[in-house]
Amino acid sequence: MMFIAFEGIEGSGKSTVLEWLCDRFAGQGVSFLRTREPGGSDIGETLRALLLDARQTIVPEAELFLYLADRAQHVRQVIRPALERGEFVISDRYADSTIVYQGYGRGLDVEELFRLNEIAVGGLWPDMTVLLDVDPAVGLDRARVRNHEQGTDVTEGRFETEELSFHHRIRQGYLAWAKRHPRRFHIVDAALPMESVRAVIVNFMNTLLSHSNK
Amino acid sequence: MMFIAFEGIEGSGKSTVLEWLCDRFAGQGVSFLRTREPGGSDIGETLRALLLDARQTIVPEAELFLYLADRAQHVRQVIRPALERGEFVISDRYADSTIVYQGYGRGLDVEELFRLNEIAVGGLWPDMTVLLDVDPAVGLDRARVRNHEQGTDVTEGRFETEELSFHHRIRQGYLAWAKRHPRRFHIVDAALPMESVRAVIVNFMNTLLSHSNK
Repeated sequence: MMFIAFEGIEGSGKSTVLEWLCDRFAGQGVSFLRTREPGGSDIGETLRALLLDARQTIVPEAELFLYLADRAQHVRQVIRPALERGEFVISDRYADSTIVYQGYGRGLDVEELFRLNEIAVGGLWPDMTVLLDVDPAVGLDRARVRNHEQGTDVTEGRFETEELSFHHRIRQGYLAWAKRHPRRFHIVDAALPMESVRAVIVNFMNTLLSHSNK
Repeated sequence: MMFIAFEGIEGSGKSTVLEWLCDRFAGQGVSFLRTREPGGSDIGETLRALLLDARQTIVPEAELFLYLADRAQHVRQVIRPALERGEFVISDRYADSTIVYQGYGRGLDVEELFRLNEIAVGGLWPDMTVLLDVDPAVGLDRARVRNHEQGTDVTEGRFETEELSFHHRIRQGYLAWAKRHPRRFHIVDAALPMESVRAVIVNFMNTLLSHSNK
């Protein structure tokens, strides 16, 4: 089994890549669990609705603790049990999202955020974190088209209403944070054609699997 | 203005005392805000319902972060603005509840809990914390009678289903924690007749007010 998290700004193509990866696992008869943050656990969907509702005025500290609560439950109720059953776990966002969005984005202290996330995840970090890196102007255009097509979906609503400069900080934050964890992070240029993005991810996974089988 | 929090195990008489104190303030024409944790803010009531629903299986770490989220929002959206308007703030429970219930009750690290609560409250601690101290056997009987009378109320449901030994740990935890903050904590023997409890609280408040007016 293996735990893979996908990170990136809105519109970086996470959903499309996750969809493809799950189809691939299903086709190969591999047991896997697809999950997401916020929202992977039973209380998580209530928290997700609260967090992503752009009408709610949530102070940054409360927002942070809600993400941590969601994550603490998600890890212990969903992710760890699936790994113990021998399944692959693929998550759309994980702890790095909080560190990057609240830290580099909202200006909270990155070291403190890392420490708080350590409590939330109880030591469980992904075997591989794929960062889909793309220019925010490209990403936001994609996200807006998607949300428009989906109509009433509030997905990622709170962060989408932020200024473009905020998303630039997020992108730079992801790149800076990834540099500090070079073994775990794998950066993919998400502006490449989808076929190339897939090929790069398959290559990462194969490399990791061949190492872990040694 | 002054910020007073009431602490104690279930059935220690917090609600009765708060009711009386609010009537007293109203009678004296004093501006005050009565609030509670969890639940004092707009997102707080959603969190309160989640936290106090005994049917939900919430892991201790997620429970902790939910209380912290509730508190962070409560302090910044409700308590601090009321104090800045010059009002008295009376809260049914505050940060000490989390430290005592999660620390002494659930076994999480008390120092860590204090540190996390410092982030949540942003340095805002009550001017006076009244601990209503009572034997858990007496308190739980009172709480059960009250909840039975109130029918469907889920108030404090999660902790009421705990063993009596848990509530003894909570009582001892409160006493131990109060000893570490002797200036802020004022302990009242809640087994005394209500008139005496009231007299003791009025005495505490007068002493504190005369000091702060000097």
